[in-house]
Amino acid sequence: MAEIPARMKALILKKDGFSGTSDGPTIESLADWCELAEIDVPRPSGTEVLVRVGLGNVNPSDLHYIKGEYGQPRRKGVPAGFEGMGEVIAAGDDEGAQKLIGQRVAVSTSRGGSGVWAEYALTDAKAVVPLHPKLADEDAAALIVNPMTAYAMLHLVKEAGGKAFVMTAGASQLGKLMATLAREMGLACIATVRREEHRSPLEGLGVGTVLNTEREDFNEMLVMAMRQVQPTVMLDAVADGHSADIFAAMPAGARWVIYGKLSTKSPTLPNLGQMVFMKKKIEGFWLTEWMAKASPEARKEAFTTVQERFVSGAWKTDIADILPLGEAEEKLADALSGLNKGKVLIRP
Amino acid sequence: MAEIPARMKALILKKDGFSGTSDGPTIESLADWCELAEIDVPRPSGTEVLVRVGLGNVNPSDLHYIKGEYGQPRRKGVPAGFEGMGEVIAAGDDEGAQKLIGQRVAVSTSRGGSGVWAEYALTDAKAVVPLHPKLADEDAAALIVNPMTAYAMLHLVKEAGGKAFVMTAGASQLGKLMATLAREMGLACIATVRREEHRSPLEGLGVGTVLNTEREDFNEMLVMAMRQVQPTVMLDAVADGHSADIFAAMPAGARWVIYGKLSTKSPTLPNLGQMVFMKKKIEGFWLTEWMAKASPEARKEAFTTVQERFVSGAWKTDIADILPLGEAEEKLADALSGLNKGKVLIRP
Repeated sequence: MAEIPARMKALILKKDGFSGTSDGPTIESLADWCELAEIDVPRPSGTEVLVRVGLGNVNPSDLHYIKGEYGQPRRKGVPAGFEGMGEVIAAGDDEGAQKLIGQRVAVSTSRGGSGVWAEYALTDAKAVVPLHPKLADEDAAALIVNPMTAYAMLHLVKEAGGKAFVMTAGASQLGKLMATLAREMGLACIATVRREEHRSPLEGLGVGTVLNTEREDFNEMLVMAMRQVQPTVMLDAVADGHSADIFAAMPAGARWVIYGKLSTKSPTLPNLGQMVFMKKKIEGFWLTEWMAKASPEARKEAFTTVQERFVSGAWKTDIADILPLGEAEEKLADALSGLNKGKVLIRP
Repeated sequence: MAEIPARMKALILKKDGFSGTSDGPTIESLADWCELAEIDVPRPSGTEVLVRVGLGNVNPSDLHYIKGEYGQPRRKGVPAGFEGMGEVIAAGDDEGAQKLIGQRVAVSTSRGGSGVWAEYALTDAKAVVPLHPKLADEDAAALIVNPMTAYAMLHLVKEAGGKAFVMTAGASQLGKLMATLAREMGLACIATVRREEHRSPLEGLGVGTVLNTEREDFNEMLVMAMRQVQPTVMLDAVADGHSADIFAAMPAGARWVIYGKLSTKSPTLPNLGQMVFMKKKIEGFWLTEWMAKASPEARKEAFTTVQERFVSGAWKTDIADILPLGEAEEKLADALSGLNKGKVLIRP
């Protein structure tokens, strides 16, 4: 075991618990929620591993979390950052954890531990993924949240016997990953966007139908698309009135699967008769739960598949910026403000 | 085969299709939607049977339907009335249908045919239930919609591994049926009511917790009840803001099962994070679909059970009024206006 340094720099949470607000994943300044501090490096025990962080990712779920609007309570003084990559430098007594020492890994801290916006992160051995040697660090830092969600949700569509689905926020990183994977899996895709300039990139990735929710003819186009494509599942990151309209226009048996909440407005429950007479359902999807429940074989198959997609060039992580840890407090909000330019990473 | 008369009196629909409105199951006058007319008696063919109607029931679903607000389009000129009882007097060529001739039956016309607010009703042989000789006509006329829904929905709770459930509109006929059946099935029940005087009758039927949605301390009582009883399913006839509040207060994994829409206000989708992080789901229940999908054995078991409950006195149909067919147009709205007094039946 390499020697573990005593102290590290980290962006730690300024507040505890939940805020009770529902403002969505935007920040005016990271300094409202996190501060750069020097703290003790956590020590792994049992099945835990300590990772020297190479790159930390910034996802909408991180912003929800630091604002106290995520599914888990904040822990004041603990580093933020759910996803990143690095090298395992120490582990608890567990044999499986010990075997990971020295390996380059992708890491998730979404079920506890100590976050990746820091020089060192602590998590369970099950929440790290040994990396393909040819996988770039930038792709590795964004390997779990988006790619695994894309993989898991499209398999959900497939397992439900669906041949077509709708995805909202189609121009997001996740939307682009789903577009190309869907094409290979033989699933027809309808994507919604909010700007006309997002149409042709998605069409270029193989999305059959792109609907702009801000256009006046949205509802007309929606009805036509539903009739032609007959999607049975909506994968929804927005959860606003447009989502409700799409759900209402979907055929009998449709499932509205909510996995994010980009909109701050809650929609009105649509046409309840459809739930009674057309067997429509509303449910949620959370990758962390999917990963906890998946069999070791299913996890391995998933992680192998997503890494191979990046190595082969089928998937690509768009990087908007990489900020040094020491500058994130000041610069992160600005770096994030350009919509859909790509991921912003943090380098300790 | 008894001779089929040529003509009959019936309350026929005045309008076709859907109205596009969502006003709920109340009427100012039946004459707005139906008229008494003399029409040809329908002739059964194939698997159909013709029933001489003894009593027709009036359910909320009938009122939704005649107003054009139900899951099926209206058919102008066809008699209304989804549920009743009578005697099979003729049948199509099908052997199973022929065997029913001469039998006293409960009848549903909710999947087509010709309604029971008439001297004769036409339906499929699968939509009639031969009756226990000791079952009263009044109980038989209300045998399918409420008792079968109670039976099917509580089995849904049981099959989902639930030990407790919430029912809204607890003071309804259906609520009372569910209360006593739940007690025998060992399911703990929380019921909501809108008037304090409905509390003790439900407690007398074995409901452990009665919550009055109109009381100022409703939310406080709700949180306490949820913590103590931990219900996993809400069987919801109302689908309003209170339903949304109850759903939000239910534990992780909760299912909101909507089977009716007594409220005319659509609720806002509650706390979407709970659907993502707590695996909560929203779905519908429709008896007609349950019956169509159930195996012959399951149907038989269900019908035997519900009839025995009435014969033994475990269940009882409260009758508010029985109107002659010729007077219903004028008197039905008034007869229905007293809330929760009991069923109003129509006698041809």
